[in-house]
Amino acid sequence: MQDTQDAPPPSSKNLASGRKRPRPSLILSNEPTPGAPPGTLLVEDPNKPKIYLIDYCLEHIVEKWIDSVDEAVPYLTDDRPSVTWIDVQGIGHKPTFERLGEIFGIHPLALEDVVNVPQRPKSDVYPEQQVIICRMAQSDVKGALVTEQIAIVFGKGFVLTVQEEPSADVLEPVRERIRKGRQLMRTGGADYLAYALFDAIIDGFYPVLEKLSDRLDEIELDALRGKDGTAHLIHDVKRDLLALRRTIWPQREVANSLLRDGSPHIQEHTRIYLRDTYDHAVQVMDMVETYREIASGLMDLHLSGVSNRMNEIMKVLTIISTIFLPLTFIAGVYGMNFDTKVSPYNMPELEWRFGYPASIGLMLLSVAGLFVFYWRKGWIGNRRRDP
Amino acid sequence: MQDTQDAPPPSSKNLASGRKRPRPSLILSNEPTPGAPPGTLLVEDPNKPKIYLIDYCLEHIVEKWIDSVDEAVPYLTDDRPSVTWIDVQGIGHKPTFERLGEIFGIHPLALEDVVNVPQRPKSDVYPEQQVIICRMAQSDVKGALVTEQIAIVFGKGFVLTVQEEPSADVLEPVRERIRKGRQLMRTGGADYLAYALFDAIIDGFYPVLEKLSDRLDEIELDALRGKDGTAHLIHDVKRDLLALRRTIWPQREVANSLLRDGSPHIQEHTRIYLRDTYDHAVQVMDMVETYREIASGLMDLHLSGVSNRMNEIMKVLTIISTIFLPLTFIAGVYGMNFDTKVSPYNMPELEWRFGYPASIGLMLLSVAGLFVFYWRKGWIGNRRRDP
Amino acid sequence: MQDTQDAPPPSSKNLASGRKRPRPSLILSNEPTPGAPPGTLLVEDPNKPKIYLIDYCLEHIVEKWIDSVDEAVPYLTDDRPSVTWIDVQGIGHKPTFERLGEIFGIHPLALEDVVNVPQRPKSDVYPEQQVIICRMAQSDVKGALVTEQIAIVFGKGFVLTVQEEPSADVLEPVRERIRKGRQLMRTGGADYLAYALFDAIIDGFYPVLEKLSDRLDEIELDALRGKDGTAHLIHDVKRDLLALRRTIWPQREVANSLLRDGSPHIQEHTRIYLRDTYDHAVQVMDMVETYREIASGLMDLHLSGVSNRMNEIMKVLTIISTIFLPLTFIAGVYGMNFDTKVSPYNMPELEWRFGYPASIGLMLLSVAGLFVFYWRKGWIGNRRRDP
Amino acid sequence: MQDTQDAPPPSSKNLASGRKRPRPSLILSNEPTPGAPPGTLLVEDPNKPKIYLIDYCLEHIVEKWIDSVDEAVPYLTDDRPSVTWIDVQGIGHKPTFERLGEIFGIHPLALEDVVNVPQRPKSDVYPEQQVIICRMAQSDVKGALVTEQIAIVFGKGFVLTVQEEPSADVLEPVRERIRKGRQLMRTGGADYLAYALFDAIIDGFYPVLEKLSDRLDEIELDALRGKDGTAHLIHDVKRDLLALRRTIWPQREVANSLLRDGSPHIQEHTRIYLRDTYDHAVQVMDMVETYREIASGLMDLHLSGVSNRMNEIMKVLTIISTIFLPLTFIAGVYGMNFDTKVSPYNMPELEWRFGYPASIGLMLLSVAGLFVFYWRKGWIGNRRRDP
Amino acid sequence: MQDTQDAPPPSSKNLASGRKRPRPSLILSNEPTPGAPPGTLLVEDPNKPKIYLIDYCLEHIVEKWIDSVDEAVPYLTDDRPSVTWIDVQGIGHKPTFERLGEIFGIHPLALEDVVNVPQRPKSDVYPEQQVIICRMAQSDVKGALVTEQIAIVFGKGFVLTVQEEPSADVLEPVRERIRKGRQLMRTGGADYLAYALFDAIIDGFYPVLEKLSDRLDEIELDALRGKDGTAHLIHDVKRDLLALRRTIWPQREVANSLLRDGSPHIQEHTRIYLRDTYDHAVQVMDMVETYREIASGLMDLHLSGVSNRMNEIMKVLTIISTIFLPLTFIAGVYGMNFDTKVSPYNMPELEWRFGYPASIGLMLLSVAGLFVFYWRKGWIGNRRRDP
Ligand SMILES: [Mg+2]
Ligand SMILES: [Mg+2]
Ligand SMILES: [Mg+2]
Ligand SMILES: [Mg+2]
Ligand SMILES: [Mg+2]
Ligand SMILES: [Mg+2]
Ligand SMILES: [Mg+2]
Ligand SMILES: [Mg+2]
Ligand SMILES: [Mg+2]
Ligand SMILES: [Mg+2]
Ligand SMILES: [Mg+2]
Ligand SMILES: [Mg+2]
Ligand SMILES: [Mg+2]
Ligand SMILES: [Mg+2]
Ligand SMILES: [Mg+2]
Ligand SMILES: [Mg+2]
Ligand SMILES: [Mg+2]
Ligand SMILES: [Mg+2]
Ligand SMILES: [Mg+2]
Ligand SMILES: [Mg+2]
Ligand SMILES: [Mg+2]
Ligand SMILES: [Mg+2]
Ligand SMILES: [Mg+2]
Ligand SMILES: [Mg+2]
Ligand SMILES: [Mg+2]
Ligand SMILES: [Mg+2]
Ligand SMILES: [Mg+2]
Ligand SMILES: [Mg+2]
Ligand SMILES: [Mg+2]
Ligand SMILES: [Mg+2]
Ligand SMILES: [Mg+2]
Repeated sequence: MQDTQDAPPPSSKNLASGRKRPRPSLILSNEPTPGAPPGTLLVEDPNKPKIYLIDYCLEHIVEKWIDSVDEAVPYLTDDRPSVTWIDVQGIGHKPTFERLGEIFGIHPLALEDVVNVPQRPKSDVYPEQQVIICRMAQSDVKGALVTEQIAIVFGKGFVLTVQEEPSADVLEPVRERIRKGRQLMRTGGADYLAYALFDAIIDGFYPVLEKLSDRLDEIELDALRGKDGTAHLIHDVKRDLLALRRTIWPQREVANSLLRDGSPHIQEHTRIYLRDTYDHAVQVMDMVETYREIASGLMDLHLSGVSNRMNEIMKVLTIISTIFLPLTFIAGVYGMNFDTKVSPYNMPELEWRFGYPASIGLMLLSVAGLFVFYWRKGWIGNRRRDP
Repeated sequence: MQDTQDAPPPSSKNLASGRKRPRPSLILSNEPTPGAPPGTLLVEDPNKPKIYLIDYCLEHIVEKWIDSVDEAVPYLTDDRPSVTWIDVQGIGHKPTFERLGEIFGIHPLALEDVVNVPQRPKSDVYPEQQVIICRMAQSDVKGALVTEQIAIVFGKGFVLTVQEEPSADVLEPVRERIRKGRQLMRTGGADYLAYALFDAIIDGFYPVLEKLSDRLDEIELDALRGKDGTAHLIHDVKRDLLALRRTIWPQREVANSLLRDGSPHIQEHTRIYLRDTYDHAVQVMDMVETYREIASGLMDLHLSGVSNRMNEIMKVLTIISTIFLPLTFIAGVYGMNFDTKVSPYNMPELEWRFGYPASIGLMLLSVAGLFVFYWRKGWIGNRRRDP
Repeated sequence: MQDTQDAPPPSSKNLASGRKRPRPSLILSNEPTPGAPPGTLLVEDPNKPKIYLIDYCLEHIVEKWIDSVDEAVPYLTDDRPSVTWIDVQGIGHKPTFERLGEIFGIHPLALEDVVNVPQRPKSDVYPEQQVIICRMAQSDVKGALVTEQIAIVFGKGFVLTVQEEPSADVLEPVRERIRKGRQLMRTGGADYLAYALFDAIIDGFYPVLEKLSDRLDEIELDALRGKDGTAHLIHDVKRDLLALRRTIWPQREVANSLLRDGSPHIQEHTRIYLRDTYDHAVQVMDMVETYREIASGLMDLHLSGVSNRMNEIMKVLTIISTIFLPLTFIAGVYGMNFDTKVSPYNMPELEWRFGYPASIGLMLLSVAGLFVFYWRKGWIGNRRRDP
Repeated sequence: MQDTQDAPPPSSKNLASGRKRPRPSLILSNEPTPGAPPGTLLVEDPNKPKIYLIDYCLEHIVEKWIDSVDEAVPYLTDDRPSVTWIDVQGIGHKPTFERLGEIFGIHPLALEDVVNVPQRPKSDVYPEQQVIICRMAQSDVKGALVTEQIAIVFGKGFVLTVQEEPSADVLEPVRERIRKGRQLMRTGGADYLAYALFDAIIDGFYPVLEKLSDRLDEIELDALRGKDGTAHLIHDVKRDLLALRRTIWPQREVANSLLRDGSPHIQEHTRIYLRDTYDHAVQVMDMVETYREIASGLMDLHLSGVSNRMNEIMKVLTIISTIFLPLTFIAGVYGMNFDTKVSPYNMPELEWRFGYPASIGLMLLSVAGLFVFYWRKGWIGNRRRDP
Repeated sequence: MQDTQDAPPPSSKNLASGRKRPRPSLILSNEPTPGAPPGTLLVEDPNKPKIYLIDYCLEHIVEKWIDSVDEAVPYLTDDRPSVTWIDVQGIGHKPTFERLGEIFGIHPLALEDVVNVPQRPKSDVYPEQQVIICRMAQSDVKGALVTEQIAIVFGKGFVLTVQEEPSADVLEPVRERIRKGRQLMRTGGADYLAYALFDAIIDGFYPVLEKLSDRLDEIELDALRGKDGTAHLIHDVKRDLLALRRTIWPQREVANSLLRDGSPHIQEHTRIYLRDTYDHAVQVMDMVETYREIASGLMDLHLSGVSNRMNEIMKVLTIISTIFLPLTFIAGVYGMNFDTKVSPYNMPELEWRFGYPASIGLMLLSVAGLFVFYWRKGWIGNRRRDP
């Protein structure tokens, strides 16, 4: 049985202009007020979040946008052995989250973690559900890093995801696999869906790293030449890498804890797949560390490039100055007004027949001497022997 | 029953002029004299500390300023199941603390830790009470970090806090929650109050970090341009971050030990809430580390900015010098006094009809040549190809 | 019995032009699409991989190129106690790997690791086989690092290796030892062959490190002189070292886990030899770390060399400028046109008998003074006392 | 009963001229000869060490300088339950230490550690005594760090301390507390005295750190201005901090091991006090690490200050040069000798009525132009917009 | 009974010219060929190694050079309870080592470690013997580090040492102690001799560190002045320190494992002495780390010295240039040829009575002005207020 509503795909690629959130690495937790009672939810947005529901089992699939979480209740309570995935896109509408807390029996502290972004990624086991806080990474059109918190709450027969923003997510391939009805995807249970979502989130770091790798490669040429503004580009990449590091380290711990701590909500069968996810998280972490080292190296390269440019400038100044100063001096000497009449010692050169050509010759000699000097130092020509 | 004295709120926001304590990170312990007997209390201040008492249970609340700790004894010894919170603001009055030691039976070594600030944050269990030494962080009006030690001593039915200074604290929201009579706040017991205070202290790091984040953002623009004085600003931020790090690391350990070591003074019910506090301590620590890396990066950015400025200065010097030196030389040549009368080889140009315009033309040619040279190097104009 | 086909040796040394894969350290995992189902194999290449089969026991050896993995099945299923080594060179031909999966019963996730390069080196135990993912390192003709993934799958009586590319490998010495019929090589079983391959891979890092050591030594001289382009060379070495480090660290873990975790596929007898391999992996790691420190030191050396060159340039400018400026000034003075007729105070020197020689003498004095000044500063001559 | 000899206090403050031992951090162990038999004692000094004896119990106290360790034997062997503290000041007199070894039955290897300074701080348990090797830190008059090894050997009823030098120590407050007859000090036993000595040694790091903190604060101003010689000051502080670090790290381990390993020579009652000492050792360690980071930051600050000074110098050179070069050029032009007679094109300006004022005007214009240029760049005046 | 052959002492101090092995830190393992069978021995040298035998018990001692290892067999197999120490100096003679393998029953992998230098220091237990691979450090005449592998194989009644080269070793004091017949040395057994050798090797690092300390001290003065070539000296020290670090770290592990892992070949009695050796290994490690930090600091010091020199050079250039440029300009002005005849505005100064002295006065004023300017900036004279 196939009961698909032709809803628009939930992840319309509207990851807008770069730098919408200019400094992702520095965003602070939305702690309402220091000292507020535990379980306090942020209420910023009078608009309801967008909610996308997918309910599936081996034979059927329903997917649709719903207006209120209460519309999902029938799917959760019917007696078909289906998995119900409720994807809430946008945080900030207090009544919705209070209602979700009631429906799924979520602990106030867990609900706070889901809503008060950003939290440090983590995985907590509760009697009726497992709560995974993690963070999606995407690149905007300019290659800058954009991250977004996503909470995955799952238990028997349901998965609830809460995304920080309704903009593009990295979960569309999972929706597609559900739609295509691949065996395991339809029969693996809610924990397998949760694994698939978490795996898609970790996999989502790869294209982000690829963009960062491209940025690093582009910067290298500029760094080499000590080009102005390169330091800033490197600094921005380093900030993105710091943000990534802060994101991926705890997420690796999450993968590890899902894999090794015996959670009652995860079937043995699913655990095997988590090993693959864990490997990927470690690989991402490795790459982030490697990129950080490369970015540091680029800063050194840049500083050396700037010094080389300075050397270049000083060489030009030195060569031209030291060539013209003696010339000007010689011209100055023969511009002196000693009276040639009163004494044969007073600048007799001025009245020589070849006085002028001789002075020009002297100047040429001085230029030639300096040229040889600089050429031997390797400052001009090819005899690159360095000073 | 509501028996509130209309006392002024204890945290009058008098966190005075920035840099009152200029180098928080370098303050040393007030060890009286090396080798003094253990349990020695500092006696500096003849004035009594300010003491604020709150006594509450589900039905009633009393709050008032008291003059002497002995006024608190009736609240501690009455047979109502209330929690008594005694907030001592200011250390240094020896008799008060000796009396507190007697009333609560505090071990001399613990009392020393409470009074002889600063101590490294820590949590010690004693048979009759738990002693938590921690450190509040606040920003002064200039955004500089101000930290203050606060000791939380709690046992059955009482919480004693000892603040280093009577100036503003971060505990007001907790007092407000007690006043509002929120269920758990009134019924959770002394350990829940202690948790709430500790949680408020950790939460209090967020606004401080936000200020530091603003300072880092402001510095970035200056660093980029290599502006004078930026290195000092970065150095000051780094010192504040070092001080924060020294503060938050052991505080995270305190949270962890409260959470995991089975203290007899903490109910199971309260322990769940400590997990949230622990998460926040870890997040603060993460951010401090990230900010430290960013501050280091800013120093690199600044050094590169200074080098760029130097390049700029040298370029101006080089371009102007090398343009005028040849011109001056040409003018010098035609200022020579070779006697045109004695020989046709002696500067016949001086007597040409267009001698002067020709020399000016020669000068223009030299200028044009250098312009092309520098333009091709990218030192002038838009053809930014760099040297 | 000796049944050797005279096949060409599989490792034709065709490790082509340097920088074919220009940035080995930044290559990302070939994750097909983020969120793809687990076990997805990459299908890029319509051409079949090259497959080399060696089947041997103590008495006989067969080796030949085969066109399809199915040709290997008889060697696997015959009842001779031989070891069958199937070396697949090149990934990307999906049907081949699906067939391999069937023949050896490889788990889809393991097969994904074998094919979707690069993976982080690791060792996984499955009921019927052990899967080792590792990475060969070789130097190309220019000394640049080239790495390639190789998977070693082994179980009872068979070893399957899958190389990323058909180009040169480091396994030829092992093939040679099999051909020579050395006792243990022929009788040690499949696990001993797997050890020998892994050992050859680790040993293969030594010549690579030797090349890097040569590159570091060559760079040192250039760094010392602050030669242009040296920073880039150092940066490239550092990238290669980062790539090596990312490769050898997990490979050391693999060696350790093979040595200590009691895998059912490894005989006690073989385990002793793995200790030697582990020692070598640690030694390689040590050397990589040492080289990294040396490369960092070279960057410092280079920056200091660049500064020295700048000092040299500035000294030349300063010495020549400051020698000629006073001279030009003196010449300028005696080029002034004050009217000697109107006053005895107006430049009477111009009419002295020895006015001109006196002015020249004054100039020589000024030059001599500066020479002495610079000589005492150690800027010229041997009196190297430094400024 | 009070039987005090009026001996001069043993710690005459004779910590002489700074830099007596110029590089404390680099002092090597006085290993007699590599390969010497274990237990070899250094014999350098024919003079006997100074020895101060204090024998006390609750009721009485004896203190006096003794000439030979044998004078102490009666106090050790009498049947009064007193504690005997023998403080040997100065190492190097072999017979004294051989005799001490006999009297207290000290293992040759332990005796070697006591005498052959410096040793790494450590704590070893022997059947009859506990040997603590530690290191006192003091500042000399110039604020430079001076460290000295002190060994504390204690067992039932005795404490033996061996100081490296007879100069000032940090133990006087302990002697004072013994004299004052404070309860615990007199009744706590030998292990309590050993604790008190160790605590005084750790406490002794605080004033040293205070001096270092002052030095760091003084340097900051110089670093900011890039003043000559600052790098050297920073380097010296760093060396002192390195020496402190090498000293305090193992001493923290000593505190920890005394606190946690159940030594038979330490009473439970004393162990509580060791926790306080441990806290202080950790705090000292924290501060040393913080100071090290600050010192590193100061070097960056200094380098940036030096660059700023260079910028300043270059700006002066650039501004003055570029202002005078055009002026000199204009003057040079009108110093040319083109013959105004032969052609109306030959410098007719020279014969204009206002030729000279016009040329001066031209010069002023050029100066004004450059002033505007530099003012807009922010190099002169207040319009600090930076280049 | 005393049966000493008057053999020349085996450690003739022939540690030849510095830098014989120029880069000890970069030497690679002599892996014969990657992929060679385990147990492959290097055969480079047709000459036999030098072999020195000492056989001793409490009463007697024999020592002599032997030509072949077979000459040692009688000493090993006689029934006197003596210890036989065979010291093989020089690796590379295959038959000798194969024979040693047979005589002592050494595992081929252990023999490979003994011969194929360098190996990472380590300690392996075999049923019949313990194999310790370690590395001696010595300084050559120039103070450069020279290291050499030495293997210590010992079991019941014998110690076999294999040195990499026949040149000077650090074991002579041990031979001397054997000769002198000190009690424990003669009676302690083979394990005590092995300890004594290992202890002598660790002790041998002290003089090496002393040399390095001297080199660091010498460099400091040069670094301070930014002297050319200092960077290279620092770089060389750093390489030696890196090599030392790579050597001493695993050697500390060896000491630890001998001390703590219960080897069957080490008597309890000997273990106590190993604690002393372990302490020394840790101390050496500490010092190496400290020296590394100091060497890094010296590089900073040097870079700052180079910058200071540059500042000095620029100050000279700036002061001299800016003093002469205005002077030359003034002279240039009065060298202009405006016709004083045609107009009273055309340079009437030229015809003033005191025109020339006035112009000289103007020049002196300009010089004085600049002197005051630079003096106030602190660039000249003592008013060191810095720019
Ligand atoms: Mg909260
Ligand atoms: Mg979203
Ligand atoms: Mg930016
Ligand atoms: Mg995988
Ligand atoms: Mg994945
Ligand atoms: Mg790293
Ligand atoms: Mg104390
Ligand atoms: Mg306060
Ligand atoms: Mg400051
Ligand atoms: Mg939370
Ligand atoms: Mg909180
Ligand atoms: Mg960090
Ligand atoms: Mg996948
Ligand atoms: Mg290949
Ligand atoms: Mg490159
Ligand atoms: Mg080996
Ligand atoms: Mg090997
Ligand atoms: Mg390292
Ligand atoms: Mg010794
Ligand atoms: Mg002393
Ligand atoms: Mg010094
Ligand atoms: Mg304390
Ligand atoms: Mg203390
Ligand atoms: Mg630190
Ligand atoms: Mg640096
Ligand atoms: Mg091998
Ligand atoms: Mg030797
Ligand atoms: Mg060198
Ligand atoms: Mg010792
Ligand atoms: Mg020793
Ligand atoms: Mg270190």
